[in-house]
Amino acid sequence: MLCLGVSAQERLFNSASVQSPVVNADGTVTFNLFAPKAVKVEVTGDFLPEQSNVAAMKEGPNGVWSYTTGKLAPEMYSYTFNIDGMTGVKDPANVYVNRDIISFTNIFIVSNKKGDKGDLYRVNEVPHGNLSKVWYNSPTLKMQRRMTVYTPAGYDKGKNYPVMYLLHGAGGDENAWSELGRAAQIMDNLIATGKAKPMIVVMPNGNTDCQAAPGEWSRGMYQPSFMGSVNQRPIATMDESFMDIVKYIESHYKVAKGKKNRAICGLSMGGGHSFATSKRYPDAFNYVGLFSAGLNIGGDRNKSFYELLQQNKEVQQQLSRLFSAKPALYWIAIGKTDFLYQQNADLRRYLDEKGYKYEYVETEGGHIWRNWRIYLTMFAQKIFK
Amino acid sequence: MLCLGVSAQERLFNSASVQSPVVNADGTVTFNLFAPKAVKVEVTGDFLPEQSNVAAMKEGPNGVWSYTTGKLAPEMYSYTFNIDGMTGVKDPANVYVNRDIISFTNIFIVSNKKGDKGDLYRVNEVPHGNLSKVWYNSPTLKMQRRMTVYTPAGYDKGKNYPVMYLLHGAGGDENAWSELGRAAQIMDNLIATGKAKPMIVVMPNGNTDCQAAPGEWSRGMYQPSFMGSVNQRPIATMDESFMDIVKYIESHYKVAKGKKNRAICGLSMGGGHSFATSKRYPDAFNYVGLFSAGLNIGGDRNKSFYELLQQNKEVQQQLSRLFSAKPALYWIAIGKTDFLYQQNADLRRYLDEKGYKYEYVETEGGHIWRNWRIYLTMFAQKIFK
Repeated sequence: MLCLGVSAQERLFNSASVQSPVVNADGTVTFNLFAPKAVKVEVTGDFLPEQSNVAAMKEGPNGVWSYTTGKLAPEMYSYTFNIDGMTGVKDPANVYVNRDIISFTNIFIVSNKKGDKGDLYRVNEVPHGNLSKVWYNSPTLKMQRRMTVYTPAGYDKGKNYPVMYLLHGAGGDENAWSELGRAAQIMDNLIATGKAKPMIVVMPNGNTDCQAAPGEWSRGMYQPSFMGSVNQRPIATMDESFMDIVKYIESHYKVAKGKKNRAICGLSMGGGHSFATSKRYPDAFNYVGLFSAGLNIGGDRNKSFYELLQQNKEVQQQLSRLFSAKPALYWIAIGKTDFLYQQNADLRRYLDEKGYKYEYVETEGGHIWRNWRIYLTMFAQKIFK
Repeated sequence: MLCLGVSAQERLFNSASVQSPVVNADGTVTFNLFAPKAVKVEVTGDFLPEQSNVAAMKEGPNGVWSYTTGKLAPEMYSYTFNIDGMTGVKDPANVYVNRDIISFTNIFIVSNKKGDKGDLYRVNEVPHGNLSKVWYNSPTLKMQRRMTVYTPAGYDKGKNYPVMYLLHGAGGDENAWSELGRAAQIMDNLIATGKAKPMIVVMPNGNTDCQAAPGEWSRGMYQPSFMGSVNQRPIATMDESFMDIVKYIESHYKVAKGKKNRAICGLSMGGGHSFATSKRYPDAFNYVGLFSAGLNIGGDRNKSFYELLQQNKEVQQQLSRLFSAKPALYWIAIGKTDFLYQQNADLRRYLDEKGYKYEYVETEGGHIWRNWRIYLTMFAQKIFK
């Protein structure tokens, strides 16, 4: 029985001969692209030593260009092709893609054994949580807003789950952590192996002048841009409006309430939101995670963050109240080459001087999703225990 | 505050100058593509008279190729580019895409006024339902399986909702209706304007040897193909296992139970599943919708569907029991040029001869999503009233 449109069917048969990417038995990966009239074809992606690197592909028989990597470590990788001056061309043989602001990349996962990073990011034969796009009302922002909610496997039979609020960076939206961040897969796999407690994970939209991700609200199919969901001054900030989210979750889900059952964490701008929200509500969150945090307390941009902290009495008082309330974990993580490294070092210097207790993790690399997936994995294992 | 990876940021600035597609004030649409070294560039898509048509693009200044359509009727359209022998190249300036089996296309919506088709398919400033990816256990298929569930706006405060089971075609999966079919937008807009009753819409996965859409289950990131999620003989068919879905929904959602609160409908293979499931359980569904249905009752493939019906006593008895139970609506819709037209004409001939009551809608066009969105829109307004 053939029940497919002719057009889709034709496309199917045309490209069936090219397989790409192919994860080879020796741990290398081969990319193949049919581009019979191309003069120059390259592949680029985060499997290369630096993200700006490219690798030249070679034309073989039948107009198929190929490149084989060295042996790759377990990880989720992204790549695109450059063809005769066009950049960011997607692999027509690979339907798996992620969007980061305006850029799509193809993705693939390398895993060598149970429990490695690739294994953690893929869908395994374990009980799965549900992932929902949920609309809630924000009285503070005076709009309907959309968020992503993960409920763990067994949620329908269980009760009193703790909640992790997991926040995206600038340019992102409520889809970022579940797509680029593999949050559902990470949580499924950590919970299934007993490494993390079953918990609800709430991934709101951190752009307070937007209702939802691009294309998912009444602004239509606009072209997203960096900070550019932002087209007007929002009536409140993320930390000012945050309790609208907590109230909705705690009145609509089977939630264990109170500070000890709440964690807040986020990457980049979302790390900044976690910093701001936790100090605004010192009794609300027992676990705070700053992943490559972008910290913003206003003031002169030419001054260091340490200097700004020393000048800002309001922030000092907020931090004093927060640490007096003794959060069980204040966790800071950043990569050695992150452009926000110094800002986070300044925060640590201030916390050290005050004797405020925190944990610190420093990894290789910079301001990249590879690190944020690692930080989520580490942080999720430290909370609600 | 800049909190974005350098790589993503660079890509952003490179392509910022090209806008595409541009919906012009006169109702035409312009596509623009930066391809400075290309020799031949075309655009193809369902905005052209036939899906196999292409339109030549012209190179303008700065390596940007362009094409402007004639005035387009309100609709959601899809398109891709052909560049020097490569087909299916996505528009780097348009982040909105749909996947149909292995093919991605870019999409855009044309709407001229409130209530036209484009307006119906877009996200408007109306109350929104939630869309969830839900894992359920299928005892019949002996596996965890994933489905998409739409709950209408106000669901948290309401009770006793009727349920529409909405099934995809061959090559599709539990994501098809919410992505290609715009089901959430259609239901939001119909419910907000009082044209459809608030209802739960359940979109299961109709490939009974698969747990979920490609990439969403433990088979990993395989290359999908037509009927090619299918790599082994499933232990049961969709209709044999269907009540696992109904039981899950009725035990986990605020559902009005019983036949009069259940509708089943689907496109192509899913129309076949609706045909098969409704006759297997004659007292289960009050509303049955066959959208360009692919009907399969076994038997000699050289015979017409009418001949097969005349020979098959079991199917005759099932249909007799179904129509004796007087479903409120048995609805058949198909396009004039659909390759399944004759099969559905054969079914109608049989129903006519038996005096079984049904409604029939014939549209322009063939076996395409444009028709299936129209059929969903029509069917949803006819049920639970």
